[in-house]
Amino acid sequence: MSAWIWGVGTSNFGRQTDRLPAELAWEALVEALADAEVDGVDAAYVGTVFGSLGVAQRALSGVGLSGIPIVTVENACASGSTAVHEAGVAIASGRYERVVALGVEHLTSLFKGPIASDPTDLEQATGLLFPGIYAMSASRYLHEHDVTIEDLAEVAVKNSRHGALNPRAQRRQALTREEVLGSKMIAEPLTLFQCAGLSDAAAAVVLGPRRRSRRDVHLRASALRSGGPWDHASEHVWGFDVVRDTAQDAYAAAGIAPGDADVLEVHDAFTIGEVVTLEALGLVEEGGAPAAVAAGELSLGGTTPVNPSGGLLSRGHPLGATGVAQVAELAWQLRGDAGDRQVEGARIGVLETMGGGTAGLDGNACVVAVLEAG
Amino acid sequence: MSAWIWGVGTSNFGRQTDRLPAELAWEALVEALADAEVDGVDAAYVGTVFGSLGVAQRALSGVGLSGIPIVTVENACASGSTAVHEAGVAIASGRYERVVALGVEHLTSLFKGPIASDPTDLEQATGLLFPGIYAMSASRYLHEHDVTIEDLAEVAVKNSRHGALNPRAQRRQALTREEVLGSKMIAEPLTLFQCAGLSDAAAAVVLGPRRRSRRDVHLRASALRSGGPWDHASEHVWGFDVVRDTAQDAYAAAGIAPGDADVLEVHDAFTIGEVVTLEALGLVEEGGAPAAVAAGELSLGGTTPVNPSGGLLSRGHPLGATGVAQVAELAWQLRGDAGDRQVEGARIGVLETMGGGTAGLDGNACVVAVLEAG
Repeated sequence: MSAWIWGVGTSNFGRQTDRLPAELAWEALVEALADAEVDGVDAAYVGTVFGSLGVAQRALSGVGLSGIPIVTVENACASGSTAVHEAGVAIASGRYERVVALGVEHLTSLFKGPIASDPTDLEQATGLLFPGIYAMSASRYLHEHDVTIEDLAEVAVKNSRHGALNPRAQRRQALTREEVLGSKMIAEPLTLFQCAGLSDAAAAVVLGPRRRSRRDVHLRASALRSGGPWDHASEHVWGFDVVRDTAQDAYAAAGIAPGDADVLEVHDAFTIGEVVTLEALGLVEEGGAPAAVAAGELSLGGTTPVNPSGGLLSRGHPLGATGVAQVAELAWQLRGDAGDRQVEGARIGVLETMGGGTAGLDGNACVVAVLEAG
Repeated sequence: MSAWIWGVGTSNFGRQTDRLPAELAWEALVEALADAEVDGVDAAYVGTVFGSLGVAQRALSGVGLSGIPIVTVENACASGSTAVHEAGVAIASGRYERVVALGVEHLTSLFKGPIASDPTDLEQATGLLFPGIYAMSASRYLHEHDVTIEDLAEVAVKNSRHGALNPRAQRRQALTREEVLGSKMIAEPLTLFQCAGLSDAAAAVVLGPRRRSRRDVHLRASALRSGGPWDHASEHVWGFDVVRDTAQDAYAAAGIAPGDADVLEVHDAFTIGEVVTLEALGLVEEGGAPAAVAAGELSLGGTTPVNPSGGLLSRGHPLGATGVAQVAELAWQLRGDAGDRQVEGARIGVLETMGGGTAGLDGNACVVAVLEAG
């Protein structure tokens, strides 16, 4: 796939109630354009879930990007990575020379508690919001495997250690297992620190069709799928199959095996999400992710660090910005620019984002991408 | 551009408060898939402005379309035509064999009066909603040209005559000039019947990479732009320049001149919108659209019928569905399937959709496409 990441940028992540969505986007865009050393782009794809009409145009025109094709895309929590996917395909197909993928979300101005997707979603109307869906996955997972809630909590412990090293993260406190398990119960068995919080942020990635220098990062492949039919009688927990299938698409396109990844950014909106994802990605066998976490293999300094940014749990999860921020983190890692949280010698990075939501489907969308150092 | 329209479908248009957005989408999808004689598609682009998270997946999975790449796109009133544009490009670039573009919107469940784009839009916060923006365009246009409000009202009269022939239209009453001008004042000088009403509907188009029979309609070209900077000191009224520039892109790609169009579906969200658009498209000279309307040139039976469907004013304007419905109308016209509102011998159709919204920009988005009979 002939698409290269020329530049990346993000705002800070967190509750930023005094700032407009477009302001956060300007920060990310200015950084990404400067990083890419370009003064404009030929098209833009903008990921946002709840960002309202015009937020993309207001964000882009604020840094002088107007009069170009702009497409706002939504794919639940995978909106940002969908923007990157579409931008990458647009570059690879020769449509454009320079494309920016922007992600932006301002959740704290819209929600106080769990986000709700759609009042016409009959399952959500019964109260089954995202924490409830993931809590059911966690309950089933703990039932089916020799794993305890203490083991799951270690995912939050690991990612909080990473997030403490990320100056732009929302939660910068390294948590103990006791702190994770002792935090407020959100949806049994998931406590507050096992759930990503409401976050405001933006992230931007500029892509081009060729490698200009060793700083450029190769987008070797990206794949997008929506979930197939799913119900409680399905073989795996919710979201497993769509991640597995999308990953297989991406691995095949990139010509890599799961074990080739040196660093991963994956969708840990809830601790159980990271566990299921790592198994669906083929990084560890089914039921094996908690043991790998416990052994330190997935921590910074381990064999295959996962979510060195702090992940959604600690960096934060501003829906539309998340996938783009994952790309930014991997770009920094693959360039060796990740500072205190650098994965030494990382050459191959994998990102996965899972957009949940619709009743009866195994997820609204999943994106898996493979990046390689230039 | 190697993209062909294999099948089209729409729901009825109008206030459909007892129906969910997905139900309307199912009607459009079932009709389009049957019309295209396909039992599935490889990807979907879904245009909606206010449709909430999951509406695309719920709509598509309800007719058995899941597990594929699905991208929801938003571009204000041009969301549906953006979905068609992206679907067409995806087909033409060889990514997929069969792609569906779906548009869906359910405005009556969300709004009572004029739609509002974004509370962070400073102009809208002052009360300058879409009727106000178009009213200012109308005031300036009437000031600059030898045209009266009676002349503008004739656009609504024409489109209401067309809409009365369209069994799926929202407003099926042929209006007189007096009825148009005598309806409730919305934003001086625009009365109710010079404004598109709130509407609920869906539309779908299936595209493929080749002509299979004479029923297939060629998508010869489509172009997408966002507006450049605009303010009251600009040479033209709001929205003129972006339509002109996008049209020039589309004409150049299709190798046609404006006068080659036999039938047009254009963005008459307000009467002044159609007038400005026709001039920006180059169909008539600046200031000349009202005279062309008065002469009957743009009516069914005239030289170049515009909005034979009834347009946004009479068929209705369910934002995300509008652009897709324009494609459906042109496909019916170019196949000779348009019944009582058939434009005899139509070979070339042009559609234009203009998505307004953001302060300081000449429109959030514009799409112009050129279609040709197979």
